Amino acid sequence: MLADGDSTMTRARPGGDADAGWLLTLSDIPADREPWAETLCALSNGALGVRGVIEESPAGRATTFLAAVFEQNPIHYHEQLKGFATGTDTRVPVADGTVLELLVDGVSIGSTLWPSTSERVLDLRTGVLTRRSVWDSAYGRIAVTSERVVPFDTDATIATRLTIEALDRPVAIEVRSLLLPSVAGAAQGDDPRIGAAGDGQGLETIVRDAARGLLVQRTRRSGIEVAAAIAHDVTDEPLDIAGGVGTRMVAETAPGHPFRFEKMIAYRWRGGDADRDARGAVARGFTAIVDTQRDALSAFWRDAEVVVDGDDRATLALRLNMFHVFQAASRTGEAGVAAKGLTGEGYEGHCFWDSEIFVLPMLACTAPRLARAMLDYRFSTLDAARANARTLDLDAGALFAWRTIAGHECSAHYPSGSAQYHINADIAFAVGLYDAATGDLNFLAEKGAELLIETARIWPLLGHDAIDGSGEFRIHGVTGPDEYTALIDNNWYTNRMAQAHLRLAANSVDRLRAERPDAWRAIAVRLAVTDEEVARWRMIADAMRLPYDETLDIDAQDDSFLSKPRWDIAGTPPRKFPLLLHYHPMTLYRHQVAKQADLVHALILAGDDIDRDRKRRAFDHYASVTVHDSTLSACAFSILASEVGRGDEAMRHFREAAFVDLEDRHRNTHHGAHMAAMAGSWQALVWGFAGFRPIGGIPHFLPVLPDAWDGYAFTLSWRGSRLHVEVTAEGCGYSLTSGPALTLFHGDTGIMLAPGERRWFGVTAR
Amino acid sequence: MLADGDSTMTRARPGGDADAGWLLTLSDIPADREPWAETLCALSNGALGVRGVIEESPAGRATTFLAAVFEQNPIHYHEQLKGFATGTDTRVPVADGTVLELLVDGVSIGSTLWPSTSERVLDLRTGVLTRRSVWDSAYGRIAVTSERVVPFDTDATIATRLTIEALDRPVAIEVRSLLLPSVAGAAQGDDPRIGAAGDGQGLETIVRDAARGLLVQRTRRSGIEVAAAIAHDVTDEPLDIAGGVGTRMVAETAPGHPFRFEKMIAYRWRGGDADRDARGAVARGFTAIVDTQRDALSAFWRDAEVVVDGDDRATLALRLNMFHVFQAASRTGEAGVAAKGLTGEGYEGHCFWDSEIFVLPMLACTAPRLARAMLDYRFSTLDAARANARTLDLDAGALFAWRTIAGHECSAHYPSGSAQYHINADIAFAVGLYDAATGDLNFLAEKGAELLIETARIWPLLGHDAIDGSGEFRIHGVTGPDEYTALIDNNWYTNRMAQAHLRLAANSVDRLRAERPDAWRAIAVRLAVTDEEVARWRMIADAMRLPYDETLDIDAQDDSFLSKPRWDIAGTPPRKFPLLLHYHPMTLYRHQVAKQADLVHALILAGDDIDRDRKRRAFDHYASVTVHDSTLSACAFSILASEVGRGDEAMRHFREAAFVDLEDRHRNTHHGAHMAAMAGSWQALVWGFAGFRPIGGIPHFLPVLPDAWDGYAFTLSWRGSRLHVEVTAEGCGYSLTSGPALTLFHGDTGIMLAPGERRWFGVTAR
Repeated sequence: MLADGDSTMTRARPGGDADAGWLLTLSDIPADREPWAETLCALSNGALGVRGVIEESPAGRATTFLAAVFEQNPIHYHEQLKGFATGTDTRVPVADGTVLELLVDGVSIGSTLWPSTSERVLDLRTGVLTRRSVWDSAYGRIAVTSERVVPFDTDATIATRLTIEALDRPVAIEVRSLLLPSVAGAAQGDDPRIGAAGDGQGLETIVRDAARGLLVQRTRRSGIEVAAAIAHDVTDEPLDIAGGVGTRMVAETAPGHPFRFEKMIAYRWRGGDADRDARGAVARGFTAIVDTQRDALSAFWRDAEVVVDGDDRATLALRLNMFHVFQAASRTGEAGVAAKGLTGEGYEGHCFWDSEIFVLPMLACTAPRLARAMLDYRFSTLDAARANARTLDLDAGALFAWRTIAGHECSAHYPSGSAQYHINADIAFAVGLYDAATGDLNFLAEKGAELLIETARIWPLLGHDAIDGSGEFRIHGVTGPDEYTALIDNNWYTNRMAQAHLRLAANSVDRLRAERPDAWRAIAVRLAVTDEEVARWRMIADAMRLPYDETLDIDAQDDSFLSKPRWDIAGTPPRKFPLLLHYHPMTLYRHQVAKQADLVHALILAGDDIDRDRKRRAFDHYASVTVHDSTLSACAFSILASEVGRGDEAMRHFREAAFVDLEDRHRNTHHGAHMAAMAGSWQALVWGFAGFRPIGGIPHFLPVLPDAWDGYAFTLSWRGSRLHVEVTAEGCGYSLTSGPALTLFHGDTGIMLAPGERRWFGVTAR
Repeated sequence: MLADGDSTMTRARPGGDADAGWLLTLSDIPADREPWAETLCALSNGALGVRGVIEESPAGRATTFLAAVFEQNPIHYHEQLKGFATGTDTRVPVADGTVLELLVDGVSIGSTLWPSTSERVLDLRTGVLTRRSVWDSAYGRIAVTSERVVPFDTDATIATRLTIEALDRPVAIEVRSLLLPSVAGAAQGDDPRIGAAGDGQGLETIVRDAARGLLVQRTRRSGIEVAAAIAHDVTDEPLDIAGGVGTRMVAETAPGHPFRFEKMIAYRWRGGDADRDARGAVARGFTAIVDTQRDALSAFWRDAEVVVDGDDRATLALRLNMFHVFQAASRTGEAGVAAKGLTGEGYEGHCFWDSEIFVLPMLACTAPRLARAMLDYRFSTLDAARANARTLDLDAGALFAWRTIAGHECSAHYPSGSAQYHINADIAFAVGLYDAATGDLNFLAEKGAELLIETARIWPLLGHDAIDGSGEFRIHGVTGPDEYTALIDNNWYTNRMAQAHLRLAANSVDRLRAERPDAWRAIAVRLAVTDEEVARWRMIADAMRLPYDETLDIDAQDDSFLSKPRWDIAGTPPRKFPLLLHYHPMTLYRHQVAKQADLVHALILAGDDIDRDRKRRAFDHYASVTVHDSTLSACAFSILASEVGRGDEAMRHFREAAFVDLEDRHRNTHHGAHMAAMAGSWQALVWGFAGFRPIGGIPHFLPVLPDAWDGYAFTLSWRGSRLHVEVTAEGCGYSLTSGPALTLFHGDTGIMLAPGERRWFGVTAR
């Protein structure tokens, strides 16, 4: 229970353990669950990611990824048709600097044994992963502790401190601290959600310099050169070993007398000296690096506070998820946020709409600088998107690739790939949300307007004025978010989002024209935008077909979805899920069954003028035909369930999203952490339970308190202000803890918070 | 002009050259047109095919194919989804026994020169291809004449007689008659209509025996062993050369003193001695082989006569096409008729619906034994079709592969492959037509009923009783014949053909039950057919949705086709055709544009109860949105055009079909001859101009005489009788030239022809 006026629930929660919501602790994970634990404990800074591997148990594994390092593999088709994607980017593991060989009496303990006890602790406040394992050797127990951090303020460094202690008696040990060449990436096999059909080869080594601890490798086709180096704070005896480089250390350890050293691993991919970076990190020292990292995370958590009163595990899950999303985002705008961030090999390291519809909304409201960097990345691939539009026979504008790293289309199955033209509207939505959250007119003038305009241009080409004279604008042959339905007509999500996109583009043109006339004139000339074109966008938006089923009295996912026979979900044995691994896509396509939220998601993102009864009818129907085989589904269902008063389902889906990786709910966390679902759990809290919607640039709230909880609170960053929202059984509070005055709505009640002001509503809005 | 009572126009045509309609003569073909000529002059017997190559110009070419010899290549997908075809059969060239090296003064003339004159004559009455080339050598002109025949009465033999004559002065020549190992198959490149993504390797040689003229090779993955051998009627000096075997002959030739020898090439793929076959052919001798071949063709032409009065070129084209179809069919039922027969590498040697909907109707009425062999082939792959149904999640019945050699699905692009479930109804149509044409109740009892029942069983699983209570039976997510429209709902062709299929299956059950009760009981038990199941088929057929557009007042190709914007056909530059090579399939899918006849074809095959006005309205509309990028389109449009009185279009499309290869109208005859269009040209004459329809097992005619023609005549085989039909400006005649009495309809007038009787109608029916 919260005391009125208490704005930081975390500290105030009576009887709570201050650490409980901040520490992810994983103890004695069995060997077959290791890959799951490694994903959960992955560290990243958006440029580099390293999985939470046990250093002294090396086994041909992919540990480290760089956002900038990917292979470009040709895609082979048995039946190649015009315009098919010709090649794919595949993120590949880089050289592995985590490896430690620990020899006791000449025997490497990690190569044959499994630790008798092992514990990982990931501290979300400091970003430090601490792992302690105890190994039983012929000379007694040996404890190995590693502390690891991936600094946000360096391009690509992994800082580690390693401590080895004989627990039973004095032991002479030999430590080989290694940097090994990259291994080959994962093969796809029969699961399209994993990697790619690679060639089974890693990068080729072009320089190996043991004295400098340096390994320079190059991807075989994309020709990306990546230098990796290690450096230590102990005297080195260079090793030239197993294709890699390393350092050999010989030491004594006894109970109470550990052997400790720091190891710094650095990467470069744009030239420059990786070994200098590694030595620089050694000079800086592990403690100083951790201090800086802690400061950066403190700043983040100040703007991104979240706590659930009465559910410590939910608090931890939310924070873990937000931590992962926060660390996955590029600091420089050079890379997007991949489906699995930099935590694993799933989906080849590709960016999808996940970035804009799931990840960006959280960052726009908690770390807007990172949201902007995500849009900077998209903007940097705009020329590739223009080329992609031409490939798909669209004579103007830009069409972003459904899945990509460098920008070109990497989807080899267009029915559930390129057919998802909604990617353009999703990116436009993100531009609009970032703009609403920040009022960053510079971005709009420099990049945002061009993104909106070029992406809007596909809609008039893709759709058409109905030939039956109905006046409708229709779009045939697309695929919406629900990938169990493909190449259909007038997908409600696509059309609704396109409608919003066209209006946003038109309105942004008006705004720039008024507020940045010079910038506008330059854009208008460069992109040849005419008033007629903008007027056409508005006409199309007004005429957009949004299919409605009069019999069922609900909005229709597309023109035919509701006329298909319903899949017998209850009669399908559990082993047959996810359906995509057990049924031919055509079988799914001809049934009324949804993989994930589709129309339901549009009702959240672009449903502000639709009344709640209509949304509830839609929710009830689509809930009954959705199998949630995608991790992207739960958060949308949770949000709409909250809005339409389906509290139990809201909580059930919230948990699906919040615990997606912590509890490995889709049994594939070992491929990497699900960034979209993780960010989606934040959305389920803020957009769902708290009913947050940015309408006309103003935050609206309509909070509910789930039965299972005593209360919850979170912080939002909005237009330079920090807003703290708390919801309890007694009511809701809104506090402006930083920044200028802010207008918001609690239900239908608009209020303006003065700086430092707090307003309390004795009842929730619903 | 025909004299009344003359039943054999060919002989009687006054002033005609008896050879004109029987000889395909190709003179002085430029080198770049050679592949076209080689296709036109290909010889086959359904088991073996050999292209009309010039023997002394060998150049790493694929000359010879065996229906039984194909590679099995895995299909790789970048995104593999459940149920995707995992491998493909690809017909590969076998060892080439045609090769002749002709050395004049030690120089092989064919390797560096092109003949100064060259002429091929294919005699459709004898099946002999005669080719004569004159080469300019330093020692004067050398004429090479080859005569070649592929006997129908052997498994796989090529019989040749070669004549070499110095035309200017005596010359000493060396002849090396070779059998060279197979070359690699053609690569697909960007044209999905060609070959496959092979591995660039031919078969591997396992035995090479120069003394026996024997080469045994094996396909690398499918492990098919094929023995090839050559034998000559001259004394051999064995050669062991270039991976192959051969014979060296040294001779003198002078003007008037040619050097002549016979070369026999034989193949075996089921064990046995190919060299014995080759030597046996030598013993039999070229002349004897030609005599037998002539007899076989005489028998065929007696039942398959066709002649156009006033258009020799049309007569020749029709006969050439029929010759190719006749020789492409398996004599044993071990293989189907591939899209290109055995004339080239197009479409990997796969069988499609082309066999049953285009080829079989011609053979059922002209060479019913071969039509039966085609169905025997399908029956032999029924287990593979059952497995294919399971792969596509259909729990009962059999689904024939869209494209295959051995029976399993070889299509790597399901939207225009496996989604064409209509293949089952097409095969059922063929069973019904063969049954109608022959009354072969044994076939029905032994194989036909099982084919009909197992294929019918997919429809109740694929479709559903409409959930809106309309009472309709609907089928979602299929692709009809028009491959520019994919994965749509209630394709008219598919539904209409499925309707006919279900009724045919139910009626055949009734018939067997009545006429072959023992056979029926065995089938019913083995296939577990119940009365309820058969009743359900009838109910589904009666309830089948056949979409109709009330506004346009025409039958609709599917639920959405007519609401799509029309492709600007007139505004598309000629270089952009065929559209499939220039536009992404999704661009085509979202437009109202048809690659080929779809609904139009169903109106022919299953349109007997639809009035002509309704057909005409449909014809006019679909003609305006069809681009005929498939060679399968023309014949259907021609037939319906005849029926609805669009005479100019009937003739235009007839010519497209008739001259498809003779004039290389799709510019890809070098990939092989278009069997479907070739047989379709016969259909355009018989089903089109003569209005032939088998209704209730009785031939109906409704002849028209095209303005451009003075008359035409053809012979049909029907239920053991031979019917001769002639159409002139004065009227039509029906003569029963062989067999028992036959009932037929001329328009609405039913007549029974007694054996030998001729009936004349003074006016055409339309």
